[in-house]
Amino acid sequence: MTLLDTVQYDANGLIPAIAQDHDTGDVLMMAWMNRESLEETVRTGRAVYWSRSRKRLWRKGEESGNVQLVKSVHLDCDSDVLLLKVDQVGGAACHTGHRSCFYRRVTDGGNGFTESNDIVFDPAAVYKK
Amino acid sequence: MTLLDTVQYDANGLIPAIAQDHDTGDVLMMAWMNRESLEETVRTGRAVYWSRSRKRLWRKGEESGNVQLVKSVHLDCDSDVLLLKVDQVGGAACHTGHRSCFYRRVTDGGNGFTESNDIVFDPAAVYKK
Repeated sequence: MTLLDTVQYDANGLIPAIAQDHDTGDVLMMAWMNRESLEETVRTGRAVYWSRSRKRLWRKGEESGNVQLVKSVHLDCDSDVLLLKVDQVGGAACHTGHRSCFYRRVTDGGNGFTESNDIVFDPAAVYKK
Repeated sequence: MTLLDTVQYDANGLIPAIAQDHDTGDVLMMAWMNRESLEETVRTGRAVYWSRSRKRLWRKGEESGNVQLVKSVHLDCDSDVLLLKVDQVGGAACHTGHRSCFYRRVTDGGNGFTESNDIVFDPAAVYKK
């Protein structure tokens, strides 16, 4: 019985996986894993998610080159959320070119928002047809 | 149209919310919010989640006293995950007494695990019947 055997997948066979920058502590993104993607992540040391929209394994960086090198994998107390500490190659986790997907912040008691200016790359140049 | 109006709730009316320590950057926990809990969180500045097991609002710390004072609320690029930066009163977010719910780490290529020793309180003393 290993820790991975205790993972609680939801009704769709998925578990949320949070990616955090190993060095800066920035929360980069949250995506979903199924058993196969989690096992490949642990085996290869590169983050692999399950794309709910494309319904297939999503090897992070397969198109952009911005792979995530996994430094450690953590499981929460209820065994239903994963935390990955990663080195984000290319510096940006978000398909928008932002370093973190959480670049929008609620302001003014919910009535406004600001965007951080942490743009690392131009999406049009990275995601070519 | 505010940022909160763009939030994409899932089929159950819920969205994942990650709580991160505002000062240390530690990822403390992930829980779920519905619209009501998100609005109360933004309005009051204290984290309120939706307890899927108890099927009611869960004002974090209502029993333990370990409330989360919300410093900022962020929404991800797909508008379907929230990130809260919080001051964790009492120092521990986890009901086990650990500072973070992610206290277990996968080791040995998935065959073992370690537990961090970041115990802040004794659960038996905090959660009285």
